[in-house]
Amino acid sequence: MTKRDEIIATTCRLLELQGYRATGMNEIVRESGAPKGSLYHHFPNGKEELAAEAIAHAAATITANIEGVMAAHDDAATAVVAFIRVLAGHVSASGYRQGGPITAVALEAASTNDRLRLTCRDAYRAWQRPFADKLRPDYGGRADRLATVIIAAIEGGIVLARGEQSERPLLDVADEVEQLLGIRD
Amino acid sequence: MTKRDEIIATTCRLLELQGYRATGMNEIVRESGAPKGSLYHHFPNGKEELAAEAIAHAAATITANIEGVMAAHDDAATAVVAFIRVLAGHVSASGYRQGGPITAVALEAASTNDRLRLTCRDAYRAWQRPFADKLRPDYGGRADRLATVIIAAIEGGIVLARGEQSERPLLDVADEVEQLLGIRD
Repeated sequence: MTKRDEIIATTCRLLELQGYRATGMNEIVRESGAPKGSLYHHFPNGKEELAAEAIAHAAATITANIEGVMAAHDDAATAVVAFIRVLAGHVSASGYRQGGPITAVALEAASTNDRLRLTCRDAYRAWQRPFADKLRPDYGGRADRLATVIIAAIEGGIVLARGEQSERPLLDVADEVEQLLGIRD
Repeated sequence: MTKRDEIIATTCRLLELQGYRATGMNEIVRESGAPKGSLYHHFPNGKEELAAEAIAHAAATITANIEGVMAAHDDAATAVVAFIRVLAGHVSASGYRQGGPITAVALEAASTNDRLRLTCRDAYRAWQRPFADKLRPDYGGRADRLATVIIAAIEGGIVLARGEQSERPLLDVADEVEQLLGIRD
């Protein structure tokens, strides 16, 4: 990992844990082990620029992950439900510390920082796309709406799973999304 | 409003906007107009106690709201979908600044503060109960699972709606929950 990658990775982790306002540049310096000069060398415009890059980085990783799972199954409903069940396992394996890397920032930014709001909005849109593309052949005009609801239920399911320290809410989401995708016009 | 109520209301608003760690006692003093002595008089154990009370207060308000909408409609599916559509209107009317009063704290607390994690978990459980009770006669053993998924989709839908500054994600959730509740064994 380059220094720049380490700074981005540390920022992702801190934003996920505590959101934007609570995450300071000094904490990023301390936790990443990068010298302060290096931080401002790579991100001369400061914390907002760094947070936007970290969110875009987390978003791209997850988009690739969704695309991979969608490509691994022929049937769209099977692919979507498999993605949610695997995600439940990841959230559990993290000790319920991870999952939903941008949710905290998205909520804060929605009312306080328009640049970061748009970065988060674009991340959610990017995650919806591979679901919608996979669903379109079978679900037609309903595919985009379904993709929105799948992302919403996953995001909320992660919040509940972390609170309960249990996979159950996400497995419930997987089961009901399976029911929902059983409805075909 | 008593001073105590004003302190609680201000804390609710700040926790919703920015989460727990970013919200300081001094900011609560400043924004509520309560003297610092009054803050520590009412909440001698400090910020954690105050946050727990604020979350419990927000939770109880929303529980009562859900119960009211469930009681206002005979049909369970109609009641649930009506609740989501009305909520979409509230989120829009707040200029997408409000909705999901405890989500930010729930995410933070899940990995950093067990007392607040449990307070948020209990809030989500309290919101699920009136949905599950309303759904049980028609959906039997599936009622609890449906209630979990409805709360998850609403919570995630609020995050998306605030990011998009549009009611659309929540209206999509309402439409697909309506589809889901059309499935009866």
